[in-house]
Amino acid sequence: MDEYTPQALREHIRSGQHQGNTSGYSPGYVQCNIVILPETWATDFLQFCLRNPKPCPLVAVGQPGDPALEALGDIDIRTDVPRYRIYRDGELTEERTDITELWQDDLVTFALGCSFSFEEALMADGLEVRNVAEGVNVPMYRTNIACEPSGPFVGNMVVSMRPYVPADAIRAIQVCTRFPSVHGAPIHLGDPAQIGIEYLASPDFGDPVTIRPNEIPVFWACGVTPQVALEQARPPFCITHSPGCMLVTDLPNSRLAIL
Amino acid sequence: MDEYTPQALREHIRSGQHQGNTSGYSPGYVQCNIVILPETWATDFLQFCLRNPKPCPLVAVGQPGDPALEALGDIDIRTDVPRYRIYRDGELTEERTDITELWQDDLVTFALGCSFSFEEALMADGLEVRNVAEGVNVPMYRTNIACEPSGPFVGNMVVSMRPYVPADAIRAIQVCTRFPSVHGAPIHLGDPAQIGIEYLASPDFGDPVTIRPNEIPVFWACGVTPQVALEQARPPFCITHSPGCMLVTDLPNSRLAIL
Repeated sequence: MDEYTPQALREHIRSGQHQGNTSGYSPGYVQCNIVILPETWATDFLQFCLRNPKPCPLVAVGQPGDPALEALGDIDIRTDVPRYRIYRDGELTEERTDITELWQDDLVTFALGCSFSFEEALMADGLEVRNVAEGVNVPMYRTNIACEPSGPFVGNMVVSMRPYVPADAIRAIQVCTRFPSVHGAPIHLGDPAQIGIEYLASPDFGDPVTIRPNEIPVFWACGVTPQVALEQARPPFCITHSPGCMLVTDLPNSRLAIL
Repeated sequence: MDEYTPQALREHIRSGQHQGNTSGYSPGYVQCNIVILPETWATDFLQFCLRNPKPCPLVAVGQPGDPALEALGDIDIRTDVPRYRIYRDGELTEERTDITELWQDDLVTFALGCSFSFEEALMADGLEVRNVAEGVNVPMYRTNIACEPSGPFVGNMVVSMRPYVPADAIRAIQVCTRFPSVHGAPIHLGDPAQIGIEYLASPDFGDPVTIRPNEIPVFWACGVTPQVALEQARPPFCITHSPGCMLVTDLPNSRLAIL
């Protein structure tokens, strides 16, 4: 897979040459989930993130109307995500590769941490990440764990799952504890029914992965959680990245490590 | 329960007024497992500890023939443990409350970390420690996990077990990770059979504890491991503390935290 610097990759994205997934590109750099909302909805959403930091870890928030995110690099959020989803009254109405024409003076950009960063840390530590090893999207599940609501933003937590033998699960907890702004430590392990998951073989999002004998499922809070809350809230206008097509930043993953 | 400073408690122990368990005394201070061996056996035992740091975490080692452990306080190891066990050719031959008469010029003292320190950290974080809550000794089990051998010192790891719901197990891993010199993070969780444990209700040492619905057993490397290795090695002469009757040191538990 081609590897670019974040700047070079964003240049390709900005010019329309790269319109697909960003997984595996610019290894070592933070990639972000993106949510863009009108300012009148942004305060409640900000509170929702702050109240639910494990599924909605804030990496950066833009100024109203400002498409820049200076803390993350020389970014124009209107052009620097490969593919956007446009929601009107809570319904997905279209996908675009550029939102310059849709930009408004009151739009606020939220950049949220993404599991790519901790998956990289796990692999750097010698732990397999099953969805990466099997070349599929990580399996994700709706749980019965209610998020702390904020105004119209409500919903249950969505989790991603990676299987490990217990000793590796313990090591994965240690590795991910260092990265609270990319979902941090797992929120559950073992019996899926305890968090309201019936069938591991049938994820609500993504693809199933193999679980081998002696492995247990380990569950992380997932960045799909805010998307579910957005579906519930049905804001009149909202833009997100398209799944897998993230904002690639200049921030090294190591800078997110708390120790 | 009476609480003493470590110095005051050791004074009571030294004078023979306190001859029993030290659990709960001098909270906040490190208590140690003690092994005393002739110098000719000490090198292999030192290597055994260094090769198996999770069950045998070295806190301090004395000089041959020197009963002091200056790093741990104003200690005379011949008098400052409430109760000692004397082994000859690998057999327990007697218990004493003072080993002054048995001291030899070639004896080397090993002070090893003990689970009391991490249990205190767990409780300070709001996690229940079931054996403490139920007022019994922690359940301990022989596993099928072989220690790295060193000379005559061989054997399988012994583990202690505390049950937690999964979210608390994850938190316990985080808390204990900070304290590698008192056994550190757990070595296993969930299915006991994976590490060769058949019946949780029948521990090999200590007492069984209640495991509630939705709880999983969490297993820590245990300081009984070196005692099992000593049984295998059968040194001609060896002194240990009597179970539960530890060396109480001046070292605050917090000083063992790596972060």
